[in-house]
Amino acid sequence: MSAPLFEKIALVGIGLIGSSLARVIRRERLAGEIAIATRSPATLARAEELGLGDSYSTEAATAVANADLVIVSVPVGSSGAVAAEIAPALKPGAIVTDVGSTKRSVIAQMQPLLPGNVHFIPGHPLAGTEKSGPDAGFADLFENRWCIFTPLPDTDPQALERLSEFWRRCGANIDTMDADHHDMVLAIVSHLPHIIAYNIVGTADDLETVTKSEVIKYSASGFRDFTRLAASDPTMWRDVCLHNKDAILEMLARFSEDLASLQRAIRWGDGEKLFDMFTRTRAVRRSIIDAGQEIDVPDFGRQVVEHPGAVMPAAKS
Amino acid sequence: MSAPLFEKIALVGIGLIGSSLARVIRRERLAGEIAIATRSPATLARAEELGLGDSYSTEAATAVANADLVIVSVPVGSSGAVAAEIAPALKPGAIVTDVGSTKRSVIAQMQPLLPGNVHFIPGHPLAGTEKSGPDAGFADLFENRWCIFTPLPDTDPQALERLSEFWRRCGANIDTMDADHHDMVLAIVSHLPHIIAYNIVGTADDLETVTKSEVIKYSASGFRDFTRLAASDPTMWRDVCLHNKDAILEMLARFSEDLASLQRAIRWGDGEKLFDMFTRTRAVRRSIIDAGQEIDVPDFGRQVVEHPGAVMPAAKS
Repeated sequence: MSAPLFEKIALVGIGLIGSSLARVIRRERLAGEIAIATRSPATLARAEELGLGDSYSTEAATAVANADLVIVSVPVGSSGAVAAEIAPALKPGAIVTDVGSTKRSVIAQMQPLLPGNVHFIPGHPLAGTEKSGPDAGFADLFENRWCIFTPLPDTDPQALERLSEFWRRCGANIDTMDADHHDMVLAIVSHLPHIIAYNIVGTADDLETVTKSEVIKYSASGFRDFTRLAASDPTMWRDVCLHNKDAILEMLARFSEDLASLQRAIRWGDGEKLFDMFTRTRAVRRSIIDAGQEIDVPDFGRQVVEHPGAVMPAAKS
Repeated sequence: MSAPLFEKIALVGIGLIGSSLARVIRRERLAGEIAIATRSPATLARAEELGLGDSYSTEAATAVANADLVIVSVPVGSSGAVAAEIAPALKPGAIVTDVGSTKRSVIAQMQPLLPGNVHFIPGHPLAGTEKSGPDAGFADLFENRWCIFTPLPDTDPQALERLSEFWRRCGANIDTMDADHHDMVLAIVSHLPHIIAYNIVGTADDLETVTKSEVIKYSASGFRDFTRLAASDPTMWRDVCLHNKDAILEMLARFSEDLASLQRAIRWGDGEKLFDMFTRTRAVRRSIIDAGQEIDVPDFGRQVVEHPGAVMPAAKS
């Protein structure tokens, strides 16, 4: 049997991403030893019950000692605190990476605190679900998803290749770009959609003329599609909003401009403009399906009641 | 074997809804005869190839002759034209209903044109997918979905009960409310979500700093969820916008106000406000799942590559 890719991997944070990593690292034998750290004793106990690692600690510094690869999977607002905590304990030559949804801010928080003798390679696997916590993870989470690196000017190519190989063996495809561009891309493909989803669910929740129970009963006619994103982890998304402010405000401004224009077309009964707009957006979905980033099942296949793992209570009135 | 619920049912329009009705009517033996009409010869030919009915015509008046139940399933902007066409040919005592997503406008268009000796009962099954056309329909579409009636003051209770029984046997649950309230409820649960989805997909499509291929590649991180709604039938949605203008403009105004407030919280770094907002929206999704209007599979179960009917091309780079 070949040697594992890393002797020891430390996972700092064991939520959806961290626990998915633990599972795929084990399945693919990517580490001789998995050390898990999280500040919450309850979460740590659960990770241990699930048997996700080989050692467990509430101290990140303990977990990273002697680790060849350290993966920080915490809300981006905690990146700086984690860097401060692990810096003195890092093994020289170790690779330190993260999975945060914003990159400029993570770099600004972590880089100044990390020692010069480790390889800090900011990363972001574009994978997730609306669930959170160590129970939510699964080994296939990264399969055919993208992992984006935003290397620093002095990033060692060999370390980058080693980390890329790690993520490929987790199932991911690799891309690299600079941090500014990453933050702009993610603002449109991920941050704006989540903010809009949170907002519309909030708007519906506040109405006086339509009751909450009506919103829920009739949600299958469209509203429901937004609630998945709006059920995502609040701490993670608060931090994303606070740490990718500029790009998010830019995308929000564009979105609101476009919406004002659409609203005007509705007010003035401009059917041609509405038709044109509603036509061109169809092609985008087709491309996403062709790129393997979506399944071509109507209504996401929700009608398939025998869906593996589906919980579909009978709610006939 | 018991007699079918109706001797003859005429389906005017044979898209997603009409063709789903044809299939469930056949399966549940709800009609002795199914007559199908659509103005498009190509669509009619396809319906015939699929064997959806017993007779086929491009003239709605031909199909409705002698029918006991007439179901109009056309974009709401065409309701008046259909009513004018079928009015002289309707059988006295027939039930005439529709499936349109707006009710005030449909009533205003159809009621004045229909003869007094038929039962006109406006209806709206809250069911659909992003697909359209006669191939897109399936017999289970209405299973555990709601069908809302907006009866007129002089609606005959017996006719309403007969139509309710029809929809129950199609799998639906029945609700009744007045047309104004229907249009307000649908504006928030269906029309606003579709408009927002069309808008965000349009915004992303227009960016200069982020390429279309990047939007597509990285869409699984949130954007993708909006593209299903934004792939819906453009004619149908143009008509909905034009025919439920007041309620939609009201909901758009509320949405934009809320978004401006959220945007301000992002600009000024108000993490507490963001966290509170992102927390309360989680509960809404839980209620929708508990009400049987959603499946509790992370990411809609998209990770399940063996999903029945799923087309998931391998797109490894």
